[in-house]
Amino acid sequence: MRILVVNPNTSEEMGKGIDIAAKRYANPGTEIVTVCSRIGPLSIESAYEETLAGQGVLERIIEGNKKKFDAIIIACFDDPHLSAARQISEVPVYGIAESAIYMASSLGYKFSIISLLERMLPAVEELVNKIGLNSRCASIKMVEIAALNTKNDQNSTIKALMESARMAIKEDGAEVIILGCAGLTSLDKPMEKELGIPVLDGVVCAVKTAEAIFGYGLKMSKIKAFKKPEPKKFVGLHYF
Amino acid sequence: MRILVVNPNTSEEMGKGIDIAAKRYANPGTEIVTVCSRIGPLSIESAYEETLAGQGVLERIIEGNKKKFDAIIIACFDDPHLSAARQISEVPVYGIAESAIYMASSLGYKFSIISLLERMLPAVEELVNKIGLNSRCASIKMVEIAALNTKNDQNSTIKALMESARMAIKEDGAEVIILGCAGLTSLDKPMEKELGIPVLDGVVCAVKTAEAIFGYGLKMSKIKAFKKPEPKKFVGLHYF
Amino acid sequence: MRILVVNPNTSEEMGKGIDIAAKRYANPGTEIVTVCSRIGPLSIESAYEETLAGQGVLERIIEGNKKKFDAIIIACFDDPHLSAARQISEVPVYGIAESAIYMASSLGYKFSIISLLERMLPAVEELVNKIGLNSRCASIKMVEIAALNTKNDQNSTIKALMESARMAIKEDGAEVIILGCAGLTSLDKPMEKELGIPVLDGVVCAVKTAEAIFGYGLKMSKIKAFKKPEPKKFVGLHYF
Amino acid sequence: MRILVVNPNTSEEMGKGIDIAAKRYANPGTEIVTVCSRIGPLSIESAYEETLAGQGVLERIIEGNKKKFDAIIIACFDDPHLSAARQISEVPVYGIAESAIYMASSLGYKFSIISLLERMLPAVEELVNKIGLNSRCASIKMVEIAALNTKNDQNSTIKALMESARMAIKEDGAEVIILGCAGLTSLDKPMEKELGIPVLDGVVCAVKTAEAIFGYGLKMSKIKAFKKPEPKKFVGLHYF
Amino acid sequence: MRILVVNPNTSEEMGKGIDIAAKRYANPGTEIVTVCSRIGPLSIESAYEETLAGQGVLERIIEGNKKKFDAIIIACFDDPHLSAARQISEVPVYGIAESAIYMASSLGYKFSIISLLERMLPAVEELVNKIGLNSRCASIKMVEIAALNTKNDQNSTIKALMESARMAIKEDGAEVIILGCAGLTSLDKPMEKELGIPVLDGVVCAVKTAEAIFGYGLKMSKIKAFKKPEPKKFVGLHYF
Amino acid sequence: MRILVVNPNTSEEMGKGIDIAAKRYANPGTEIVTVCSRIGPLSIESAYEETLAGQGVLERIIEGNKKKFDAIIIACFDDPHLSAARQISEVPVYGIAESAIYMASSLGYKFSIISLLERMLPAVEELVNKIGLNSRCASIKMVEIAALNTKNDQNSTIKALMESARMAIKEDGAEVIILGCAGLTSLDKPMEKELGIPVLDGVVCAVKTAEAIFGYGLKMSKIKAFKKPEPKKFVGLHYF
Repeated sequence: MRILVVNPNTSEEMGKGIDIAAKRYANPGTEIVTVCSRIGPLSIESAYEETLAGQGVLERIIEGNKKKFDAIIIACFDDPHLSAARQISEVPVYGIAESAIYMASSLGYKFSIISLLERMLPAVEELVNKIGLNSRCASIKMVEIAALNTKNDQNSTIKALMESARMAIKEDGAEVIILGCAGLTSLDKPMEKELGIPVLDGVVCAVKTAEAIFGYGLKMSKIKAFKKPEPKKFVGLHYF
Repeated sequence: MRILVVNPNTSEEMGKGIDIAAKRYANPGTEIVTVCSRIGPLSIESAYEETLAGQGVLERIIEGNKKKFDAIIIACFDDPHLSAARQISEVPVYGIAESAIYMASSLGYKFSIISLLERMLPAVEELVNKIGLNSRCASIKMVEIAALNTKNDQNSTIKALMESARMAIKEDGAEVIILGCAGLTSLDKPMEKELGIPVLDGVVCAVKTAEAIFGYGLKMSKIKAFKKPEPKKFVGLHYF
Repeated sequence: MRILVVNPNTSEEMGKGIDIAAKRYANPGTEIVTVCSRIGPLSIESAYEETLAGQGVLERIIEGNKKKFDAIIIACFDDPHLSAARQISEVPVYGIAESAIYMASSLGYKFSIISLLERMLPAVEELVNKIGLNSRCASIKMVEIAALNTKNDQNSTIKALMESARMAIKEDGAEVIILGCAGLTSLDKPMEKELGIPVLDGVVCAVKTAEAIFGYGLKMSKIKAFKKPEPKKFVGLHYF
Repeated sequence: MRILVVNPNTSEEMGKGIDIAAKRYANPGTEIVTVCSRIGPLSIESAYEETLAGQGVLERIIEGNKKKFDAIIIACFDDPHLSAARQISEVPVYGIAESAIYMASSLGYKFSIISLLERMLPAVEELVNKIGLNSRCASIKMVEIAALNTKNDQNSTIKALMESARMAIKEDGAEVIILGCAGLTSLDKPMEKELGIPVLDGVVCAVKTAEAIFGYGLKMSKIKAFKKPEPKKFVGLHYF
Repeated sequence: MRILVVNPNTSEEMGKGIDIAAKRYANPGTEIVTVCSRIGPLSIESAYEETLAGQGVLERIIEGNKKKFDAIIIACFDDPHLSAARQISEVPVYGIAESAIYMASSLGYKFSIISLLERMLPAVEELVNKIGLNSRCASIKMVEIAALNTKNDQNSTIKALMESARMAIKEDGAEVIILGCAGLTSLDKPMEKELGIPVLDGVVCAVKTAEAIFGYGLKMSKIKAFKKPEPKKFVGLHYF
Repeated sequence: MRILVVNPNTSEEMGKGIDIAAKRYANPGTEIVTVCSRIGPLSIESAYEETLAGQGVLERIIEGNKKKFDAIIIACFDDPHLSAARQISEVPVYGIAESAIYMASSLGYKFSIISLLERMLPAVEELVNKIGLNSRCASIKMVEIAALNTKNDQNSTIKALMESARMAIKEDGAEVIILGCAGLTSLDKPMEKELGIPVLDGVVCAVKTAEAIFGYGLKMSKIKAFKKPEPKKFVGLHYF
């Protein structure tokens, strides 16, 4: 199968990390193509940037459909514009938070999410509520590092994530850790080794979910929430 | 006080209706200015269109702040891009769904929302859950008419809305009706007269809420969910 | 418009504080009249005292309707006898907790309530659940000072409130503070100044809500939860 | 043991029915004394009447403690003033709704409540939420007959109740029926016989619960929610 | 009445403790017979052992029905196989967790459960959710002692339980303590004396609940959740 | 990878159907071995039969671990003994309900479950609550056909399922259908074709989930809910 992975920001560097992550555990027959948005913010760390990432994401979704990909992944932990993408797409679109949360819930009773920047906590909490698994969420913990700095300062990033994860296990009852940012994607296995419990990177989870659902021959339901929008006039937006 | 009302689509006609609604019950000292998005869809009837309305809305929010408005209203019942707008704004931003739902909950134990297009039902349900008052929501009922056609075909619009409202009262226990679309804004009082219970138009609710909160000298909390985004590089987006 | 503010206890001193609070931010055209219950407890700090405040409150509600007030506020944070008052009243009746909680939820994602006396915590928790916004409530914190002593010992009152508020912000994620007692009504703005986030006094919130809803020409729904009681024989109760 | 049953209204006739119900299934060693409120409404069918029943109920609670009863029951399905009574009482106080709901939940997965007057539905729904077993409540159904008329018109009362119960079983999945009014107390066994599932009268449930808890030597927790109120000045209320 | 108490493990020693507990507060006319499972694990401290206790429990339930007991109690805090037992039984079957949780909720606003072994916490949390009273549960606290060791090391058991109970009261707002293990059954009154709040042993709660419901002449609802299974072929299982 | 599929009943015929289903969409490199329980009921259609299926299931789980399978699936829609199996297993164990519910939630906003026998409805409702996605469940519909008869009477089975599915779509808002019985496993694609929305068979969902998680190199979390039980004495149970 062919999966298009859309990095919804315009950082080529982050796109490369996501591409590596997406390919790491893909099935032999799975072709992964990773693209970044052509327009929009360099990273998404607020609702404001998420909104402004929308046009860039949807362009890539439409292209992915034209190029006959079998599935599309939006590789940012807020699952930005997932409903919009699913409406405009004929092929399944996956969010990395949704995929990670479902997968985590098969591996332990409670999961914790370790993500970046305290200011994003309300958004992550709303996302978990929307997905519907708040009863299985032990805690959401934020580490105060900007996504684009996680590579530069990898040691202190790992150290801070490990400290949060250990607290989540000890105090909140976490049995599975979800890394809540597409910029942390390479840290799953090193952390898993030290913690002794599953550590999930949402990009991989989404690739494996896409393969699983494709393997079963399933498509998205297009009758209601993800129904194709009627043709409509757009003013001043290229491509639309 | 000065309130900027942003019609987040590019339909001047809908903008005019919103402007009339917003001014109808404004306090004498309240100056209302209504603008439409310069770019984006002609109406918002899907998550897809909501996403593509984002840039146009945020431009208007930023302008509203530059022009020293005291409050800003996003006049579409999905409260599109409300969190993003609140982050980028120094002055309070209000959604018409949120305002209507809070106001309704002071006037009866259960409210029902009558909105347009069955396909939007999941989005409205998610919105009520996010606002947090699902326990007070008797039902959400959708009438199968496109927003832009409500004026053309006003008689059948009213008839369909009244039928839904009466069912909501009789079968679901609704005590207050919320009109779930900025295109239905003039129908509140005629329906209220016939039904004998409060019928709320969210545009008016938001104006009155903005005045109330301004009158108390309150500002938004800017420390977490609505914290100002850090400066960031944007690629290919004018204004940002 | 004319608003009757009912202090549901018999403390004239607390009534004066409430009157000042209610008038502070009222619109120019709003006439505020504050009365205390003629019979009942000197303050309400238990369900027991709340029950015994009932008759006094309802007498004032009935008088308020006879004297053609446009709205009535019950100025105690438990919103005592609010449903009863709404049933017997033709004009809208507002609780200060309900009004503050709705207003807070427009200004931040999570609010905390700082109130008095640990023994009241279950009642406040039940109230928030009943209003329906428990998902937006970061925490309820109680300071161990009796309502009637808050004036005598204002310094230690403020100190204790500030400490609780700071903990609510830091540990619980509070973005807005609600002062959960009609005896704390003057402390909103001093605390707001220091904390840098909105601090809401319910009395003001209720006045502004009453004005907003009156300005929209809305009445309460009288068809079900707040339906007028049938005439009925009462034994041994004056006025009823 | 000695149980005081308080009919919180002033209807001697309803008091007699409650007394019979309370004694029907009491243990041989249980002495039941039933009293009506001396002051207050003739029946409680609104929040307004509930409020005005408060003083009469609390007088009886205080008397019950002075006369060394071992437990007290408030025999009205809204559990009116239960928290207040528990605060002022040293001995356990039981509500008939609470007792019936807990007992029902041991006998089937889902229960339905059949009560009187549509206008009371919001109050019953709030009560079930407050007790916390809304997840076990299949439905709440209201029959449009006033409590004081149930005796006069017993045939049509039974017919209406049976119809509601059968619908609750068939459509809502009810496995246990709770009669939601102290005026229906004699109908449990006749209905049970016809329906073939448990039909619970709350008065009996409360008596049996009181005996069970007394038999275990348990008292109420008096440290927080039901903590004894501090002495306080009351204005214009006899007895307090 | 005659109650069969089934210790669902094969520890005769634990069976004896349960028997003493069950008889302690039984009514004079109540005959208690306690039996242990003939086959199965020596104690139940995991879902694995719970599953393997199933056959032994059901044998005893079937025997209890043949021997015309009036009610049956499964005396293990996980309420193991309660639904199965209720389906195969004509007479009511009670779980000790369910009984304790309902009884606790009549005595205080919030209860805490003190049980054994951290690994069981998810199971207890799921049980409280299933029973439906999670909103009344202040906390679940686990003490790291194996059930079979509680007698050997009674001093350190009591000390650890008291410490957990005090923390539950102080930090979590517990007003009632439930002892979450049939091996702790004798510690209720000693702990109650020291803590000054009700401490409930589920075995006693179930006996008192069984007596209460029997005294009202009630049976289980057998129409849906607890409907008798159809006859079916079993392979390789004695007794079935 | 090698997956052991355990049919938890003793019906070889149902085992064959499950085996076919499990192999239908498996990856080329996946070896599927399906076994039935050696002891236990011929089908599981009650909690009673579920309990008695326990020993047979756990034997197969233990064998599966000894024989070095990479994952194990329990192929019955109640996910019977899933926690127990996970505790005793080193390799991941999957339930078919859990897998189907997570997969469905990626393909539409709301799913409905169509299962067999009205008496099982409470169990399925409890299961959905336990999994945590009740907010995404549009409805649970039961068709009154015994599992072992679905093959004999395939036409009327399909007809009844299709009718339920169409009602779920039209009245409840279902966008995805889950077939809630391992005996319905071959009907997914025929129904999908007619309904035009995804129809999921849990057996396939579990196989695809097992492959996905194996492909990512993940194991279960063994630190708390699924921690390995301590060695313990069992009386009278072979194998344990």
